[in-house]
Amino acid sequence: MKTKKAKITLVGAGPGDKDLITIKGLKAIQSAHAILYDALVNEELLDEAPQDAIKVFVGKRAGKPCIKQDKINLMLVQHALEFGHVVRLKGGDPFIFGRGHEELVYAESFDIPVNIVPGISSVTSVPLLQQVPLTRRNVSESFWVLTGSTKNHQLSKDIVAAAKTSATMVILMGIRKLPIIRDILVSEGKSDLPIMLVQSGSTKNEKVAIGTIDNILSEAKAKQIGTPGIIIIGEVVGLHPIFIKEKVASLCQS
Amino acid sequence: MKTKKAKITLVGAGPGDKDLITIKGLKAIQSAHAILYDALVNEELLDEAPQDAIKVFVGKRAGKPCIKQDKINLMLVQHALEFGHVVRLKGGDPFIFGRGHEELVYAESFDIPVNIVPGISSVTSVPLLQQVPLTRRNVSESFWVLTGSTKNHQLSKDIVAAAKTSATMVILMGIRKLPIIRDILVSEGKSDLPIMLVQSGSTKNEKVAIGTIDNILSEAKAKQIGTPGIIIIGEVVGLHPIFIKEKVASLCQS
Repeated sequence: MKTKKAKITLVGAGPGDKDLITIKGLKAIQSAHAILYDALVNEELLDEAPQDAIKVFVGKRAGKPCIKQDKINLMLVQHALEFGHVVRLKGGDPFIFGRGHEELVYAESFDIPVNIVPGISSVTSVPLLQQVPLTRRNVSESFWVLTGSTKNHQLSKDIVAAAKTSATMVILMGIRKLPIIRDILVSEGKSDLPIMLVQSGSTKNEKVAIGTIDNILSEAKAKQIGTPGIIIIGEVVGLHPIFIKEKVASLCQS
Repeated sequence: MKTKKAKITLVGAGPGDKDLITIKGLKAIQSAHAILYDALVNEELLDEAPQDAIKVFVGKRAGKPCIKQDKINLMLVQHALEFGHVVRLKGGDPFIFGRGHEELVYAESFDIPVNIVPGISSVTSVPLLQQVPLTRRNVSESFWVLTGSTKNHQLSKDIVAAAKTSATMVILMGIRKLPIIRDILVSEGKSDLPIMLVQSGSTKNEKVAIGTIDNILSEAKAKQIGTPGIIIIGEVVGLHPIFIKEKVASLCQS
């Protein structure tokens, strides 16, 4: 019997569109003996694996019971020792609010070699696909990436700090906290600031709501925005084609 | 004569490693009639284009004379009208401190259809390839992405604001401003904060300097760090294998 060498590749699958994985990520899948994949991964990517590769769903879905991180760490190591090359396929980028770093450290403690393949994060790609740059000369010089859900399910205090600055805010896992995020911006006197919500960006299920801090709750309701989603707040959202069209229309009427 | 339809695809080539482009980006290159590419693009990607495709270097290199952005915009449109499908190949992601959005708006003003293909930004991939997560439970809840070079070649005021927060700081185009960035952090009482500099991340020319705010200037000199590079500042840098090794060594000695 041929012994397969244990190794692990942490791969970012990108934001959802199958063709937004990297060449390197695809090559890793094509040489996998086992794949452990998350909920936000495009499952068509699994078809690229060898026919006899084992495929295990280890995803977490908001509000549903899930496999605990400790269990995933253990499964990664067990599968590598038993089957050889394990690809850990994660949505977006493995290190952006994922727990890829914990998986890396755990696997290395068993002397299993780990490679990491970055992925296209929704942080940068979802705004881009909406034609919204996170920075733009004369509009915004920086962007601040935050999470709406910390380990204690509390709102990150960094959101309060970010609301006081001129940085574009990008909030992952924040859709459920939208009312409180809105209140924070209102209390900073930013009711007119443009805001965009994108659910399932880059996929065929994509939904978008655009407005200002003032009216975004009703816009989100009208567009039935749910999870998973991303929130972008800042003047750069005013560069979205919908905003531009409105501006042109109002100029024509005046 | 067959007329080729004018269209433009803005493609992010990724941080440098050829295999860190997306499948979608590669497909665009493979169907290009002309490619306009930047200095930070891996030129091996040009070999993927059809043999008769036109390849034009339009890069900017720090401190050297360069093609002005207005000229690039115009060349994009002219090449699309003359040759058909133009791929505008940019380093990293086309919308992260690139001027992809300006190119998009300009080309659309000529009614030329523009597609955008996101790329792996050095912002997320370079730290990851160093095994440094930008956020980590109990260490950092957010990261703030900044530029060291604004349009007036001044330091962005956002860097001063970011230094006052607990967000991980990621600074692009900041290597030349390292002494002043260091001074800002020192004045915030953060002399002990870990900092990492990476030049040409993900390529064979990669160089890394790691230290604290206090000693980073001498570390940068010792490692001969130049441009293009990225600066990461924050407690998460303490998770770099070099720091971990130092910690283990000091525990063994004590």
